[in-house]
Amino acid sequence: MLPELEERKAKQLPRGFMRANVFHAPGKFGIEEKAIPRAGNGQAVVQVRLTTICGTDIHIIRGEYPVHEGLTIGHEATGIIHELGAGMEGYSVGQRVMTGAITPCGQCEACLAGDRSQCGGPLGGWQLGNTIDGTQAEYVLIPHAQANLALIPDALSDEQVLLLTDIASTGFSAAESGNIRLGDTVAVFAQGPIGLCATLGARLRGASEIIAVDPDPHRLEIAAKFGATVTLMAGPEVAGRIRTLTKGRGVDVAIEALGTQETFENALRVLRPGGTLSSVGVYSGHLKVPLDAFGSGLEDIKIVTTLCPGGKERMRRLMRLVESQRIDLSPLLTHVFELEDIAKAYELFGSHGQGVLKIAIRVS
Amino acid sequence: MLPELEERKAKQLPRGFMRANVFHAPGKFGIEEKAIPRAGNGQAVVQVRLTTICGTDIHIIRGEYPVHEGLTIGHEATGIIHELGAGMEGYSVGQRVMTGAITPCGQCEACLAGDRSQCGGPLGGWQLGNTIDGTQAEYVLIPHAQANLALIPDALSDEQVLLLTDIASTGFSAAESGNIRLGDTVAVFAQGPIGLCATLGARLRGASEIIAVDPDPHRLEIAAKFGATVTLMAGPEVAGRIRTLTKGRGVDVAIEALGTQETFENALRVLRPGGTLSSVGVYSGHLKVPLDAFGSGLEDIKIVTTLCPGGKERMRRLMRLVESQRIDLSPLLTHVFELEDIAKAYELFGSHGQGVLKIAIRVS
Amino acid sequence: MLPELEERKAKQLPRGFMRANVFHAPGKFGIEEKAIPRAGNGQAVVQVRLTTICGTDIHIIRGEYPVHEGLTIGHEATGIIHELGAGMEGYSVGQRVMTGAITPCGQCEACLAGDRSQCGGPLGGWQLGNTIDGTQAEYVLIPHAQANLALIPDALSDEQVLLLTDIASTGFSAAESGNIRLGDTVAVFAQGPIGLCATLGARLRGASEIIAVDPDPHRLEIAAKFGATVTLMAGPEVAGRIRTLTKGRGVDVAIEALGTQETFENALRVLRPGGTLSSVGVYSGHLKVPLDAFGSGLEDIKIVTTLCPGGKERMRRLMRLVESQRIDLSPLLTHVFELEDIAKAYELFGSHGQGVLKIAIRVS
Amino acid sequence: MLPELEERKAKQLPRGFMRANVFHAPGKFGIEEKAIPRAGNGQAVVQVRLTTICGTDIHIIRGEYPVHEGLTIGHEATGIIHELGAGMEGYSVGQRVMTGAITPCGQCEACLAGDRSQCGGPLGGWQLGNTIDGTQAEYVLIPHAQANLALIPDALSDEQVLLLTDIASTGFSAAESGNIRLGDTVAVFAQGPIGLCATLGARLRGASEIIAVDPDPHRLEIAAKFGATVTLMAGPEVAGRIRTLTKGRGVDVAIEALGTQETFENALRVLRPGGTLSSVGVYSGHLKVPLDAFGSGLEDIKIVTTLCPGGKERMRRLMRLVESQRIDLSPLLTHVFELEDIAKAYELFGSHGQGVLKIAIRVS
Repeated sequence: MLPELEERKAKQLPRGFMRANVFHAPGKFGIEEKAIPRAGNGQAVVQVRLTTICGTDIHIIRGEYPVHEGLTIGHEATGIIHELGAGMEGYSVGQRVMTGAITPCGQCEACLAGDRSQCGGPLGGWQLGNTIDGTQAEYVLIPHAQANLALIPDALSDEQVLLLTDIASTGFSAAESGNIRLGDTVAVFAQGPIGLCATLGARLRGASEIIAVDPDPHRLEIAAKFGATVTLMAGPEVAGRIRTLTKGRGVDVAIEALGTQETFENALRVLRPGGTLSSVGVYSGHLKVPLDAFGSGLEDIKIVTTLCPGGKERMRRLMRLVESQRIDLSPLLTHVFELEDIAKAYELFGSHGQGVLKIAIRVS
Repeated sequence: MLPELEERKAKQLPRGFMRANVFHAPGKFGIEEKAIPRAGNGQAVVQVRLTTICGTDIHIIRGEYPVHEGLTIGHEATGIIHELGAGMEGYSVGQRVMTGAITPCGQCEACLAGDRSQCGGPLGGWQLGNTIDGTQAEYVLIPHAQANLALIPDALSDEQVLLLTDIASTGFSAAESGNIRLGDTVAVFAQGPIGLCATLGARLRGASEIIAVDPDPHRLEIAAKFGATVTLMAGPEVAGRIRTLTKGRGVDVAIEALGTQETFENALRVLRPGGTLSSVGVYSGHLKVPLDAFGSGLEDIKIVTTLCPGGKERMRRLMRLVESQRIDLSPLLTHVFELEDIAKAYELFGSHGQGVLKIAIRVS
Repeated sequence: MLPELEERKAKQLPRGFMRANVFHAPGKFGIEEKAIPRAGNGQAVVQVRLTTICGTDIHIIRGEYPVHEGLTIGHEATGIIHELGAGMEGYSVGQRVMTGAITPCGQCEACLAGDRSQCGGPLGGWQLGNTIDGTQAEYVLIPHAQANLALIPDALSDEQVLLLTDIASTGFSAAESGNIRLGDTVAVFAQGPIGLCATLGARLRGASEIIAVDPDPHRLEIAAKFGATVTLMAGPEVAGRIRTLTKGRGVDVAIEALGTQETFENALRVLRPGGTLSSVGVYSGHLKVPLDAFGSGLEDIKIVTTLCPGGKERMRRLMRLVESQRIDLSPLLTHVFELEDIAKAYELFGSHGQGVLKIAIRVS
Repeated sequence: MLPELEERKAKQLPRGFMRANVFHAPGKFGIEEKAIPRAGNGQAVVQVRLTTICGTDIHIIRGEYPVHEGLTIGHEATGIIHELGAGMEGYSVGQRVMTGAITPCGQCEACLAGDRSQCGGPLGGWQLGNTIDGTQAEYVLIPHAQANLALIPDALSDEQVLLLTDIASTGFSAAESGNIRLGDTVAVFAQGPIGLCATLGARLRGASEIIAVDPDPHRLEIAAKFGATVTLMAGPEVAGRIRTLTKGRGVDVAIEALGTQETFENALRVLRPGGTLSSVGVYSGHLKVPLDAFGSGLEDIKIVTTLCPGGKERMRRLMRLVESQRIDLSPLLTHVFELEDIAKAYELFGSHGQGVLKIAIRVS
């Protein structure tokens, strides 16, 4: 442990304790004291510098996504290695690191088969702020740390890499799973933070025309900066307009980045035969496949879903994109709050007000 | 044209005419006289030797799949080249050939992108017995013949290769599109002719456990011969039983070879996270995605659909499998009828009676 | 045929004749009169507007690549449809088109297997200016025109699309065949026109660091504009420098765009275990694999070679990249000559003088 | 630790000691006493039941492959878990397990990128009997045991699974890396144990014609049992004969399973344009690429090399193939020796006498 950091904390909290944003019941969550976690075998404790709020966190505090009472929320963070558990090799306390929202073990059958986000079972790669305490705290325990601690190059700030942990890795994966070819036409439905990253991902993979759809003109403006060549207001006519824009041909890849029946259906409706619907949306309620848009199953259509890829190798490659100045996610970080004000940050983020996209929560 | 064949026909029919199985209205179809087609540019006329009836043909005569009045039905055939249109190279009249049910042009954008079954537009590769006269006739016009006439090796009989044209190419493609890895566990829902070929395809691609599901014990027996290591009667418990059989792990690839909500849903329910649902079913009515089995879109699940791959290169490779004795589809050809008795063959095939699987229609 | 064009020609040449750059023997070639070709079945005659000289053409006139006496040289062109042969559909005389240097039929076994550049046999897709008369002429016969005439959108000039026909399609394919992942580090050996397009292709596919190597500082400057993040002078130390730059890790993908033992060997030496050497070079003499750099065959290294992909679908997608302003190849077109001055253009291109990269030959 | 096993050993050896086959210098190796290893963090000690000798081991004892003095040789084994280090989860002492010859950590960048055989660096996945003590001993320390201990199902004997650890995983991977399509024609050069498994692998992936080449008629007989449809004696005419057999077309995939200039060159010479040379050979000395067979780099040829894939997920799938009776490797286990007689086993294996293919070394 780094004694000077401990000292600083000691002024505010009992030794060995920290502040964390803890969920208790729908609508009931907030900053409270919790014991600083200790690193077990193959684990690390990271002193958090920067974290953020994800759409999923909003579902959690509203009780729409169930987590256990007393859980610390949050799955995105940069920080400093505070403690290394037994078995950890090649790292040292004090190094600046980030970890993906998904923290695969790398050693179970799912991981060895390449399905790292499904580590150990369905959605098993997502542990932070889901099945174990998360990142909206002064310290966070990182499981399977050997596979997940990614060193941040000195040249990059925390702000520059924070969003790679989840929304960029997810959004880019929508483009990657869609197998975009050079010059393909791509439509991206919804331009929230993940959709915007999907737009950017489509550009990074070499799409030509990228059609971004959203009901919010402000988000469409950012979409244009992120690579959209056409921006369309969401609405009942949007599928028809895309059909017209592509001269009836349809798009090669349609990305669904929201998780509603409407966007899923539109994505399917604008797809050319043989095309791919790449979904990173989280669906609830029900999902129907419109058979006319699906060619009754005879149009060689593929529907692929992807959960945010994690692991330190992924994170390293994404940081390389920032370092080589191929991407700049800073337009997405619209607001900054201190950890103690996180309740206000949740309020703002949940309201979609003030042009908010992502909020940096400064912890230390 | 081969004069001796023309001569033979002349005894029965006016010169230049042939017998064909023509659709007029739901329930109204049968053998009648029609002009022998003439080969236009890039086309060929094949004198049919053997054809068969497909499940789709049953939908057509029942009016469940719309085709234009006066169409000759059928899309599977072996025969002899009778006439070659201008521009055809490397073939000669009298050669014995087969063509896939799907006859891509090879030269449009869809074909050049590898989406040959979607040649020229949705489902565009399926022309025979759909948008142009089909194979249940003494002569059939083959479009884009340069890409579709596959020479039958002398060592193989018509009976040995007939089923490659559609059901084997389709069933095998279910296994291929599912990206089965060596040693994977595969479940195949429905063991009709296509499902049986999917079972065989899973074996050909190196699956270990192959779980075949069907309500018909006779079909399950054939499934076991085709490579199924476990056969299960269809029923409400089948998904649970497969979960148990795989010790809760689920299957790597689930093949849907029917096109119903029930089989689609079961296929999804038995899939492991990260698995692939490979569908060759034809759906009607509606299709719902059960979100629990879909992990709300977060389980890295892929749903891929495939329409029968055609083209002479595909057909050559499939014939090689027969020639090298890796596959033997003869157990599927359960009955033989003459062309003039095709109405009886339709009756039998539609009734699922007498253990019928596929019926060879002998034309010449 | 377009009468007005014929008329114009008639002023200069006997009716039905044109000027063409014809090869006779090593060092012996030049503009002469030739009959305007006539479009046979499935063919088209294109009145050439713009063509160019390729490195291969230099090999041809020097006798280093054998072609038959009397051949018209050249395989890159834009132009106007002058005549359409029987069987051509969906085109009309007067349309502005381009064709890839490779003109696959789409209908042979190689094409149907996706190996279109090997149409009909080894290198069989390359016919123009190789086995049939080429594009350095006022008119050129396009074989398999249905698969190869790509309409040029009105918004694009001939100059903007000319280089897509060969060097861009080839250079980009080096990046595509290398299976570059998002954030990968790529080294590109040699920055001639194809190597520069490979650099651009690596950028288009989402590489982070792109290391361009060439002995010519001017080409390295252009490489930097095309996406190279590091440029290195070729030399004996270059492999070591790349190893150092990547902190000993090596590059994920090494592209060889020249065809010499030295560049091939360097490409292999800088590759990480598990990496891919993607080659678009043309080798002569001999090629040795240094076993230390190859891990004696145990390093999971892949060596892939790619011949320029052709076909109108490929060309359409590449034109879309220009239209959506993702690429601009104009810096490569350094000089313009009229067809009658093509000998001078060859001299300049062969000398590598005046910063020449590619020369536009204006024909009409 | 299992006390009863310790006790048994205690009769023969000082407590905590075991017998192991140790290398000292070229030609100098043999059974001696060594301390039983202790399981560190994330490691396990396995009491060996069955091990075998690999061609690489012969290279080691001859000094052709350098290892450090005092190393225990061997990388293939089945056994009983004897001790589990800290951090191991889900296993218990006494379970019967096997591990692949390659033991990846699953957590380094190479592993997370899917290049598990290159774990931590070139060839880094191969540790057992290479960089750490190996399996020809009574006990062996398994590194990264969480990723590498594969439970053997009760239904399978040690003899049934032993060869999966290396030669089957390697041989099959030759077929997998070659991307064999259904009905492809495959040639396999050399029918040693790995080549025979490559032949079997080609069959498992759905090849039609499989042409096996070897100078040994006995091995060709086994090749025929393993799926070869044609067997050819190695010799100067073999490439020409394969060209004839394939009617000049060439093979789709050529597998090189030896590592000599001759077999590599033949593999390249019989390949069709667009085909893949899949190599699992270990080359020494030099390797030249014959440019005529390589199309000067223009034939869209791919050369892929693969080092034995390891990890428990791979091993589980391979065991499933045995359990579902799709493969039976028992014909390859031609001889059995006790550990104390291992010198004789090396002599026999090195001499290629008595029809030896693989020798089971019974340890406990």
